[in-house]
Amino acid sequence: MTNYYEVLDKNLVAVDCVIFGYDISDKELKLLLVKRKFEPEYGKWTLPGGFVKKDEGVLEAACRVLYQLTSLKDVYMEQSYAWGDVDRDSGGRVITISHFALIKTHELDPVMIEASVAHWRSISRLPKLIFDHRRIIDRAYKELIDRIKVKPVGFELLPEKFTLVQLQDLYEAIYQRKIDKRNFRKKIISMNLLEKMDEKEKETSKKGAYYYRFIPSRYEDFKRQGFYFNLDVQ
Amino acid sequence: MTNYYEVLDKNLVAVDCVIFGYDISDKELKLLLVKRKFEPEYGKWTLPGGFVKKDEGVLEAACRVLYQLTSLKDVYMEQSYAWGDVDRDSGGRVITISHFALIKTHELDPVMIEASVAHWRSISRLPKLIFDHRRIIDRAYKELIDRIKVKPVGFELLPEKFTLVQLQDLYEAIYQRKIDKRNFRKKIISMNLLEKMDEKEKETSKKGAYYYRFIPSRYEDFKRQGFYFNLDVQ
Repeated sequence: MTNYYEVLDKNLVAVDCVIFGYDISDKELKLLLVKRKFEPEYGKWTLPGGFVKKDEGVLEAACRVLYQLTSLKDVYMEQSYAWGDVDRDSGGRVITISHFALIKTHELDPVMIEASVAHWRSISRLPKLIFDHRRIIDRAYKELIDRIKVKPVGFELLPEKFTLVQLQDLYEAIYQRKIDKRNFRKKIISMNLLEKMDEKEKETSKKGAYYYRFIPSRYEDFKRQGFYFNLDVQ
Repeated sequence: MTNYYEVLDKNLVAVDCVIFGYDISDKELKLLLVKRKFEPEYGKWTLPGGFVKKDEGVLEAACRVLYQLTSLKDVYMEQSYAWGDVDRDSGGRVITISHFALIKTHELDPVMIEASVAHWRSISRLPKLIFDHRRIIDRAYKELIDRIKVKPVGFELLPEKFTLVQLQDLYEAIYQRKIDKRNFRKKIISMNLLEKMDEKEKETSKKGAYYYRFIPSRYEDFKRQGFYFNLDVQ
């Protein structure tokens, strides 16, 4: 029996990773970008990416790309969109499946980043990128904004313990606008997902500010009780 | 110069269409399913799908599949997810990109559907499907629920004029639960996106119920003013 699949067109499939990073001292949302190492568009800024091998899952490929660049595993990774226009890549017909990842920049070895082709660039000052990579970023960024409003994924970008000011800084960096402090605190406290610690952060003020921790099990309980996470604050 | 792309693995890429249909008289959300016409899994229930040709965009392929089955163009179509596990298809390595479409079942030629391999099946009574198609449906269905809460896409499933009862029937059919009538009406009316018509629907009650129309330009104004569509009613 001949296999029907054998006569069909095959396509190159790639993954591109929109790697968002945040550092509590910088208070800026950043993207990890690389310079391309092959033609076409050699040397130009691009999203870290790679081609999906025939014996490799799509998510697996995205994790491989991220690992090769950062040596990080177990990173928050979510599929964003499959970009399928015939002429989106000037080197050939490539369908790329974009993913976004969230990492704490302080987890990355700065020596490794320094020596590699990768650079952190602020989301508000991105260089010109190849192909449709700017559109890919814009979509992933919108998805990130939507996600942090309704899911506690923002904590992926913070150290384990953080102050409420640091949490608000993160949301302001992602939203790229100021938000109302009172309203923000009221919302996050009322969900009862954070544990107030005994320890204080004292570097930024004399009085100090208590550290908090996000407790994933409390979030599970919260959902089971039919509640929805909501940090959509003006 | 040798092209770097030429030495890379290529993959079969497919599209699968989760085609939601609704008929105001049935008050049931349905899916258009087909019986597979080739091996493996010949004759089994499957989502309508097809393989992406090398000179064809991904969305274009999904629209082709839908058109071949329904003769419909300009249908609401949205990408859902790229399914990329290596062994998801027993016939070979196929990455499939699922899409969901919304159509009014009364727009379809019943003779054509009767003669074809396609059948409408209620979302609450689906047959066993091949491969991961059930997961694909589950995801698209969740996305549909999320979408109709925050975007006026439900109107894609209704005739141009509809009563408020018919609109609520649709939402209840998609949510698969009863919703509060007063709250629902208050929300939809307060957004001022519908135009009340002079005509009444008189088949279902003696008194009759006014028809309404959804006005897309009002929705554009609504968004421009910074408002959000919201029909998340308990």
